[in-house]
Amino acid sequence: MVVVMQEGVSEEKIQHVIDRLVSFGFDVHRSTGASHTVLGAIGVHPEFDTRDIELLDGVREVMRITQPYKLASRAFRSEGSVIDIGPGVRFGGPEIVVAAGPCAVESSDQIFRIAEGVFRLGARILRAGAFKPRTSPYSFQGLGEAGLKLLREAADRFGLLVVSEVMDPSQVEMIQSYVDLMQVGARNMQNYHLLRALGEVRKPVLLKRGMSATIEEWLLSAEYIMSGGNYNVILCERGIRTFETSTRNTLDIAAIPAIKKLSHLPIIADPSHGTGRRDRVAPMARAAVAAGADGLLIEVHHDPEHALSDGAQSLYLEQFGQLMTELRIIAPAVGRRMA
Amino acid sequence: MVVVMQEGVSEEKIQHVIDRLVSFGFDVHRSTGASHTVLGAIGVHPEFDTRDIELLDGVREVMRITQPYKLASRAFRSEGSVIDIGPGVRFGGPEIVVAAGPCAVESSDQIFRIAEGVFRLGARILRAGAFKPRTSPYSFQGLGEAGLKLLREAADRFGLLVVSEVMDPSQVEMIQSYVDLMQVGARNMQNYHLLRALGEVRKPVLLKRGMSATIEEWLLSAEYIMSGGNYNVILCERGIRTFETSTRNTLDIAAIPAIKKLSHLPIIADPSHGTGRRDRVAPMARAAVAAGADGLLIEVHHDPEHALSDGAQSLYLEQFGQLMTELRIIAPAVGRRMA
Amino acid sequence: MVVVMQEGVSEEKIQHVIDRLVSFGFDVHRSTGASHTVLGAIGVHPEFDTRDIELLDGVREVMRITQPYKLASRAFRSEGSVIDIGPGVRFGGPEIVVAAGPCAVESSDQIFRIAEGVFRLGARILRAGAFKPRTSPYSFQGLGEAGLKLLREAADRFGLLVVSEVMDPSQVEMIQSYVDLMQVGARNMQNYHLLRALGEVRKPVLLKRGMSATIEEWLLSAEYIMSGGNYNVILCERGIRTFETSTRNTLDIAAIPAIKKLSHLPIIADPSHGTGRRDRVAPMARAAVAAGADGLLIEVHHDPEHALSDGAQSLYLEQFGQLMTELRIIAPAVGRRMA
Amino acid sequence: MVVVMQEGVSEEKIQHVIDRLVSFGFDVHRSTGASHTVLGAIGVHPEFDTRDIELLDGVREVMRITQPYKLASRAFRSEGSVIDIGPGVRFGGPEIVVAAGPCAVESSDQIFRIAEGVFRLGARILRAGAFKPRTSPYSFQGLGEAGLKLLREAADRFGLLVVSEVMDPSQVEMIQSYVDLMQVGARNMQNYHLLRALGEVRKPVLLKRGMSATIEEWLLSAEYIMSGGNYNVILCERGIRTFETSTRNTLDIAAIPAIKKLSHLPIIADPSHGTGRRDRVAPMARAAVAAGADGLLIEVHHDPEHALSDGAQSLYLEQFGQLMTELRIIAPAVGRRMA
Repeated sequence: MVVVMQEGVSEEKIQHVIDRLVSFGFDVHRSTGASHTVLGAIGVHPEFDTRDIELLDGVREVMRITQPYKLASRAFRSEGSVIDIGPGVRFGGPEIVVAAGPCAVESSDQIFRIAEGVFRLGARILRAGAFKPRTSPYSFQGLGEAGLKLLREAADRFGLLVVSEVMDPSQVEMIQSYVDLMQVGARNMQNYHLLRALGEVRKPVLLKRGMSATIEEWLLSAEYIMSGGNYNVILCERGIRTFETSTRNTLDIAAIPAIKKLSHLPIIADPSHGTGRRDRVAPMARAAVAAGADGLLIEVHHDPEHALSDGAQSLYLEQFGQLMTELRIIAPAVGRRMA
Repeated sequence: MVVVMQEGVSEEKIQHVIDRLVSFGFDVHRSTGASHTVLGAIGVHPEFDTRDIELLDGVREVMRITQPYKLASRAFRSEGSVIDIGPGVRFGGPEIVVAAGPCAVESSDQIFRIAEGVFRLGARILRAGAFKPRTSPYSFQGLGEAGLKLLREAADRFGLLVVSEVMDPSQVEMIQSYVDLMQVGARNMQNYHLLRALGEVRKPVLLKRGMSATIEEWLLSAEYIMSGGNYNVILCERGIRTFETSTRNTLDIAAIPAIKKLSHLPIIADPSHGTGRRDRVAPMARAAVAAGADGLLIEVHHDPEHALSDGAQSLYLEQFGQLMTELRIIAPAVGRRMA
Repeated sequence: MVVVMQEGVSEEKIQHVIDRLVSFGFDVHRSTGASHTVLGAIGVHPEFDTRDIELLDGVREVMRITQPYKLASRAFRSEGSVIDIGPGVRFGGPEIVVAAGPCAVESSDQIFRIAEGVFRLGARILRAGAFKPRTSPYSFQGLGEAGLKLLREAADRFGLLVVSEVMDPSQVEMIQSYVDLMQVGARNMQNYHLLRALGEVRKPVLLKRGMSATIEEWLLSAEYIMSGGNYNVILCERGIRTFETSTRNTLDIAAIPAIKKLSHLPIIADPSHGTGRRDRVAPMARAAVAAGADGLLIEVHHDPEHALSDGAQSLYLEQFGQLMTELRIIAPAVGRRMA
Repeated sequence: MVVVMQEGVSEEKIQHVIDRLVSFGFDVHRSTGASHTVLGAIGVHPEFDTRDIELLDGVREVMRITQPYKLASRAFRSEGSVIDIGPGVRFGGPEIVVAAGPCAVESSDQIFRIAEGVFRLGARILRAGAFKPRTSPYSFQGLGEAGLKLLREAADRFGLLVVSEVMDPSQVEMIQSYVDLMQVGARNMQNYHLLRALGEVRKPVLLKRGMSATIEEWLLSAEYIMSGGNYNVILCERGIRTFETSTRNTLDIAAIPAIKKLSHLPIIADPSHGTGRRDRVAPMARAAVAAGADGLLIEVHHDPEHALSDGAQSLYLEQFGQLMTELRIIAPAVGRRMA
């Protein structure tokens, strides 16, 4: 921690700050410049609340030196992590992995038709929700465990893997028996009860970025899971809230190279939630891959106009096929390949 | 719902949109202008996803006419609601109600000393957490139910009421037996499992605004609770995330008159979390009252420098006393009074 | 304009609103629903301030039907515009056009070396500033007209065209005699004196998006230029301000498909200013092209470590060459080609 | 400047960074910790672009120690500045100064009626625009110099002072002969040509905050004027752009105590532009005063429904009178008084 004192501050105030730092267990190095005195405070206090020093008389600014996350940082593992979620499917390797499927499992017929379609077009993972967080109590809430069963069956039929969302610690045990990758939604990125529960299992976790989460907060949430012993975390950018409302959210494509620099974890993008409109999904999916994403999460429905939820942001199967064709052209530009 | 067609769009496309609207169960009124055709779609479909029309060919824009919330709207109850949380303590009446106390219950001695202090200085409610959502698994996590017992005892000793946070549906039953007002934190504003559980109890709920929630989303969360039958919801502004980082959040004071216009529910402000710095709490508390807030939620500690959490944003008792004195001057300017 | 009245509002208030609308010159169509009365106000008042109705008693919401811009809208010209800025260089056609060069013209040697380099690697336009807006009065302010002369000579030597920034109406005449494309910087996007002056010339204009401008405001600024008779406007996305500070700005890639839907004007991206860091430029340049951008504006320097300004966001020539190679792979995925 | 190296970085990379710092003219102090090496770079390079170090191999983070502004900082003058703009009118002293008047001078009758009204109710300064920046070329553009003459005459008649906006360096000379305080609008906060011109005159300047300007950028713009020799700068908060759109902008009340801590300059608030709606002006004006503002800038019109511009955010004279009464109650709470 570096403490910058105000210009021309009295010796007494400087000494008071030093005393406080020592009382908190820090070693203090003092450096007296022409205009500023700067204090370096050394010691392992990852949880230290820097505001306790910031508010002391005569202090201008306090800067943390140590990153608040360790296990998620690039320094911890300088090579990028490659996360294996099932036979032949690895995030962070040479292949860009695509998970596709409907917003929600609606019926056996629906999920089998979509599974067949996305498999044929090159997806490796089937995505769909069984428990839906909805803004209204009157909306379709998902099929629950029955939906997970259908999802697993449909995926197995075509050799796909499965990703689905877990919303509550009480569901972790049950859901992990059906899926290959457990998804944490944006609204739960800081649900610490849930993160802790996921740290204790050994299934890979797909951690979506919260709508107003900084990149640092996002990596801290990953750290939360990893500190429990589960290192298999894949990050998913899905749009942040800004003043611009022409799309639901602003998909922060620049977060992809930013994460690559700060962390060794794989990162994918969800252009469906990131834009909320079918006609924006393909451009943003292509952009994400071109920027270096390790994969994509895409909503696809065989009949979006009659989808029970999020039809407006679901691609038709033909559109998904067209997108996959485009991505096969782009992937070599970033030294990658598609399935 | 009003559907604005693009200029010069073909009759066929207009007819297709009308057909779709009718198939969704709407009555359609068509109005053909010199440049634009506008369609009015009438029918009760509160859950209708307007994007399903927005994406049709030839449509320029779709505007929802009905507000998505009913029970929380000013139209539902044109007089503001007055919510009684215990003997003589009403939010939304002539008195500005102050809840004060530490971030967390730390010990019997601590909570009794603070309870005595805030009571003496004019607070009506004792606030403190027993379960703390922390960004790190190594931080102080709160005393749990033992903390709630101490909180209740300390409050009872001085005739104060109690507010404390509930974080999970599984805690609702237990916590409501200790408190007079159940707080939902900003990170849980869209935790629908929790909101639904709170709709089923009859304790008043203090609903904090999410860090990136619009005013409409906030009122929708209130609606969620109210639709379950619990109409006693008090809103709490606690700062939104913006590009400005000189304080932790930007306390959106203008949300106070905005809520007063849109809703009948009482609204209070939390300047402690809204700024994150002790030296900003008093100015923002005064501003909130001057803008028309019905109450305040303030962190106060008898010894902030040794608080186990959030000491940096806790007022000293003397500072809290000084603030109450200032608020007594301001309240009459808005036709209100302090206890 | 559609005026939605509050639920249960009195007939008298509705009549008052109708009277006001009529007094403003609107024709009014009334539609009385079960819960809401909705008024349609027809008439050509592009400048009408809808707040004048919004504040009337009993009004819940006012929605504008007509887009505030006409000439810039897709409805005005359903085919995308192709803007010719010089021999063989067209924005909006099949070729993705790249403008590259240093932040500022520093010397004859510098600009000739860079011009040679970017020409050889496939750029069609040479970019560089001669007048620099700097946050400090002590910083390098550019070479002025002497810089423009060097820029023109260097471009001509290699058959490149020239883009450079104009900052003040008083400079328009002089600068247009040196350049092929006049750039309006983000800070000047709403400098109406400047926009008006540019509407009167016949040189194409490159209009950067303001840091906090919505897409609608940006198109309104384009409209300002076009309404003066200069239809040759090219838009340039260069990053918006959000809560995320890991890069200088958040390059809003989704603005590219959004503009393509709303407007016929070509749109390019500036990943150098959009990220502020050399190591983020290539990923975001690739993303922009993959999302459908018509071109790029990129800072390149033969010796960035000794650049007089913005060296940190300038690519080395080798990096620029590598990027061009990658873009040649990506372009066919969006049905385009590079020079 | 403090340079934090990545964990476990090689000695060679550290040495390279040190060499670069030395080549830029810094003295370097090295501190080698258990996990991190931290370099302190000392030397007066206010213009140094820290990104040039940030991008070097092995560097994790660079933190600037010196504030980029000097003259505007609280360290430069620990007592707050009191700025005298004319007989008996001082910003930053015990009196809260109110400037009131219409958006624009429309006619002699209009400005005299409003001047009489606001004078009678306690304003000390008459505000009105003579040159209006409008989003459309067809809108009312102001009366120009004739408007300034009327404004001066009306103010003089009632012993008021005058504030009006200057939009272009070419207007500075002329406008300063009519006004007592020269206003820089939000869109011009970073118009460096204008700021430089204002640094050379001796009239006080009212500097509005840009819609997306951080507090630091705002103080840098003040510094720009002050570095030219004109120390009489008054800051004006007028709302920032955020995701919340229920009001035009989010008036950042917390900027008031933030500025008081960082700078010695007076700060006032403009609740009219900060909200854009008449019914929000009074609550936000009261909030600003309660938070410690040194004054207010308020739009008032004797007949807002027929104002040529911004009628929707102009108070009626009666509302202004009511507000002044409320402010007289609030002022003593912050140790101030009204005229």
